[in-house]
Amino acid sequence: MTISLQSPLDMHLHFRDEEMLQLVAPLSGESFAGGLIMPNLVPPVDHLERLLAYRERITAALKGAEFEPYMALFFRQYSEQELAEAREHTLGIKLYPAGATTNSEAGVKAMDAVEPTFKLMEEMGIPLFVHGESDGFVMDREKEFLGMYDYLARKFPKLQITMEHITTADALEMLEQHENLRATVTLQHLVITLDDVAGGMLNPHLFCKPIAKRPEDREALLAAALAAHPKLMLGSDSAPHPVSQKECCGCAAGVFTAPLLLPRLAQLFDKHAALDNLQAFTSQNAQRLYNITPRKKTIVLEKADFVVPESYEGFGQKVVPMHAGETLTWRIHKVL
Amino acid sequence: MTISLQSPLDMHLHFRDEEMLQLVAPLSGESFAGGLIMPNLVPPVDHLERLLAYRERITAALKGAEFEPYMALFFRQYSEQELAEAREHTLGIKLYPAGATTNSEAGVKAMDAVEPTFKLMEEMGIPLFVHGESDGFVMDREKEFLGMYDYLARKFPKLQITMEHITTADALEMLEQHENLRATVTLQHLVITLDDVAGGMLNPHLFCKPIAKRPEDREALLAAALAAHPKLMLGSDSAPHPVSQKECCGCAAGVFTAPLLLPRLAQLFDKHAALDNLQAFTSQNAQRLYNITPRKKTIVLEKADFVVPESYEGFGQKVVPMHAGETLTWRIHKVL
Repeated sequence: MTISLQSPLDMHLHFRDEEMLQLVAPLSGESFAGGLIMPNLVPPVDHLERLLAYRERITAALKGAEFEPYMALFFRQYSEQELAEAREHTLGIKLYPAGATTNSEAGVKAMDAVEPTFKLMEEMGIPLFVHGESDGFVMDREKEFLGMYDYLARKFPKLQITMEHITTADALEMLEQHENLRATVTLQHLVITLDDVAGGMLNPHLFCKPIAKRPEDREALLAAALAAHPKLMLGSDSAPHPVSQKECCGCAAGVFTAPLLLPRLAQLFDKHAALDNLQAFTSQNAQRLYNITPRKKTIVLEKADFVVPESYEGFGQKVVPMHAGETLTWRIHKVL
Repeated sequence: MTISLQSPLDMHLHFRDEEMLQLVAPLSGESFAGGLIMPNLVPPVDHLERLLAYRERITAALKGAEFEPYMALFFRQYSEQELAEAREHTLGIKLYPAGATTNSEAGVKAMDAVEPTFKLMEEMGIPLFVHGESDGFVMDREKEFLGMYDYLARKFPKLQITMEHITTADALEMLEQHENLRATVTLQHLVITLDDVAGGMLNPHLFCKPIAKRPEDREALLAAALAAHPKLMLGSDSAPHPVSQKECCGCAAGVFTAPLLLPRLAQLFDKHAALDNLQAFTSQNAQRLYNITPRKKTIVLEKADFVVPESYEGFGQKVVPMHAGETLTWRIHKVL
């Protein structure tokens, strides 16, 4: 049994830089036609020249793979001229509330001070990507941020706002409230809950931000993904960290999923008799919502065992993926 | 500034066995007059001869410290004769729902099948200590178990039931419902929430079962402890694991607090102007609830800096305590 996916897209992706970029970029390049690359480097990608240079490093690291790196600027106050110059090189701008996630210390602290930039983005049709978490109690951070989505969506009704990596049923409800909201969801938030992170042994390889939530949240997200909810896109948030920063006292947040995304999603959608909707969830929704036309690329997936490697290594880096050592029931058969 | 505590008791304590016992028993023996030793060894301490042999190993490991090891049997169905023989050697019987915590695979699966033993314990005045968690979602496990406390307390109104290491405001409410319920609470559940375990970096040294809950839970527990709630006792659940089983992929549950319990509690009660209630919380409540008279021992605590060691090592073991490397504002001045 096989299925073919046309030009799958991963609309929330961390490539990092330097050696880690060399290791992980080809792993997405193998099976995706493109992806939205997050700008949270140190220093952040918040100038056009920095963005263009990062794009060149990504292109080199992809080593000829047919993969379009859609770029995002890191949010700050931008002038109209800066935005006009950046417009053709970026899919949008990523906003991190200060301190909420990896390398986001430079994020925005006071939302109202930057509203002129939101206004410019709205007028120029530049999407806003948001890591939507408050600085509150870990299980409440997304819910506490939903009022900010509501506020922004009302105040800037033409601004396209993406609720990145949503993790709760409450976020799905907010998604329905405004035409200009859309959302990404990761693989892990479709399959795990806090139980998998801290219910038995502590599992650092499933620790991410936003943290996995309650069973009813996972069920709601999974139902929306399986139905190919028209405002919901795959955005893996695949986030490699060196193993030395994961299996240690005080491990960093992020789950690495890039190389197994499509097999695992095929297994999940197959289990729920929803394979017909995998194409929309992994590509068409993003094409329509962002008005993009990716490169033509066909991924043929086959229902056959795939043992996920214990780690991916190279360039002096070692990254442990989700489901390391486990056997998935679908694999990539060929790429055309 | 100093305060003196008379015969402090730690009414929920893991001493383990062999080399780890050698390392940790003296650390409690230094500053406590006694403690209730948990029976979850492998195999569990569920026969009198095993209990007596464990008590002898503990006494040897204490190396003459003035510390009374109150013993607990591991719950199973016991005959009247077994209970009669064990009565004078044990403070009570510890019940673990199957699979809920470290080495509890032998715990009880079907509560109703063992009610004859509850009945015997009630008649003979033998307390029941309960690890009260369901096998549900990690944040709900204690709350889901509260109905079982309610059931047992009603059905066996003379059975003394201790809700061990409570972590939620809901558990405190249940504690008020029945005269025959009492509870222990750990140090860590008075000072941390899930935020400290998984809100920033993942912190394996603060990962325990039951897991730390929400801020409002901590506030409720802290208020009850500071007020020396008459049905609430210090039970540290101090649970040493070798560092190799903590700072690793998939770490074991348990926080090691024994050597810093009294300084940290003095700091906490001092901060909240409740030092007058520390004596009852750490000794009188347990003496009254369990009808025990511990050895005379006076611990003089002093308001002065105490740098918590990064680890405690010996006998080939290495254990990392809570607050490792941090400076506390109270320390043990002398023991009389």
